[in-house]
Amino acid sequence: MSITYSPIGVIRTPHATVKGMPIQPVGALGVPGTIEVFESFREGLSDLDGFSHILLVYHLHEIKGFDLMVKPYLGDALHGIFATRSPKRPNPIGLSVLRLMGHDGERVFVENVDMLDNTPVLDIKPYVPAFDSWDADRIGWFEGVVQNAREHEADERFHKAG
Amino acid sequence: MSITYSPIGVIRTPHATVKGMPIQPVGALGVPGTIEVFESFREGLSDLDGFSHILLVYHLHEIKGFDLMVKPYLGDALHGIFATRSPKRPNPIGLSVLRLMGHDGERVFVENVDMLDNTPVLDIKPYVPAFDSWDADRIGWFEGVVQNAREHEADERFHKAG
Repeated sequence: MSITYSPIGVIRTPHATVKGMPIQPVGALGVPGTIEVFESFREGLSDLDGFSHILLVYHLHEIKGFDLMVKPYLGDALHGIFATRSPKRPNPIGLSVLRLMGHDGERVFVENVDMLDNTPVLDIKPYVPAFDSWDADRIGWFEGVVQNAREHEADERFHKAG
Repeated sequence: MSITYSPIGVIRTPHATVKGMPIQPVGALGVPGTIEVFESFREGLSDLDGFSHILLVYHLHEIKGFDLMVKPYLGDALHGIFATRSPKRPNPIGLSVLRLMGHDGERVFVENVDMLDNTPVLDIKPYVPAFDSWDADRIGWFEGVVQNAREHEADERFHKAG
């Protein structure tokens, strides 16, 4: 079974290359980006301006292939891909909560962007804490290293050929 | 540009039909489901058991077509699709934070399931509050109605032909 999607737009960010890129929005606080929404989808932005944050769903377009066991940016050990946020996934779908600054009907202005320039956007959802914020009391191998995401930068480990 | 994904598995849930289904995980607390992961992806579950919650990314397989303006389950007015969590989206990608109960290497046991039985699963990500939980201070038209998601059930408005 294969599932086919078409981007609703692209996001422009200051991150032209993977090397040195923030690995999560918490490492990109205040970094601005612009979602350029394709014309045929722009009507769907109506009422988005009421929200302070959005969930951006995007296609990790520079990822080739996947690994089931990966050594993530924040760790030194191998973990199953589904226990990590590493990009080299069977379906390279990225997910980031971004700060919404506004939109002009064509472009959506956001902050905290942690993805490559020209990343294809699949969906924009309003972030609703009652749905999306949960008291997760166990965070596996992230325990003790999660705070490093603020300073840690990406390298090219997931973007080499293969 | 088209983007093609293949499911990594399916999720089995008690929700055989849309009618009466919970509209968000907060309306499905304790409702059990099982993600049946296809054999070729099972190695990727390694270390997942350390997490209390997962982000499930899935394909809303019963949705045909999309609307840019929708009247959501929780509201009486039309809103742009990207300002709602309604399923009839340009790319029908669903996203739910689920309680992780464990896995046996083939099946992942979860709770709070709010999707149809046999929904194709695209990705499993560990839920990490430092990345995924944000103080959103503006929730647009959800203000004053979001708490209704606990009791509200789906009807067939987004699942009719068209």
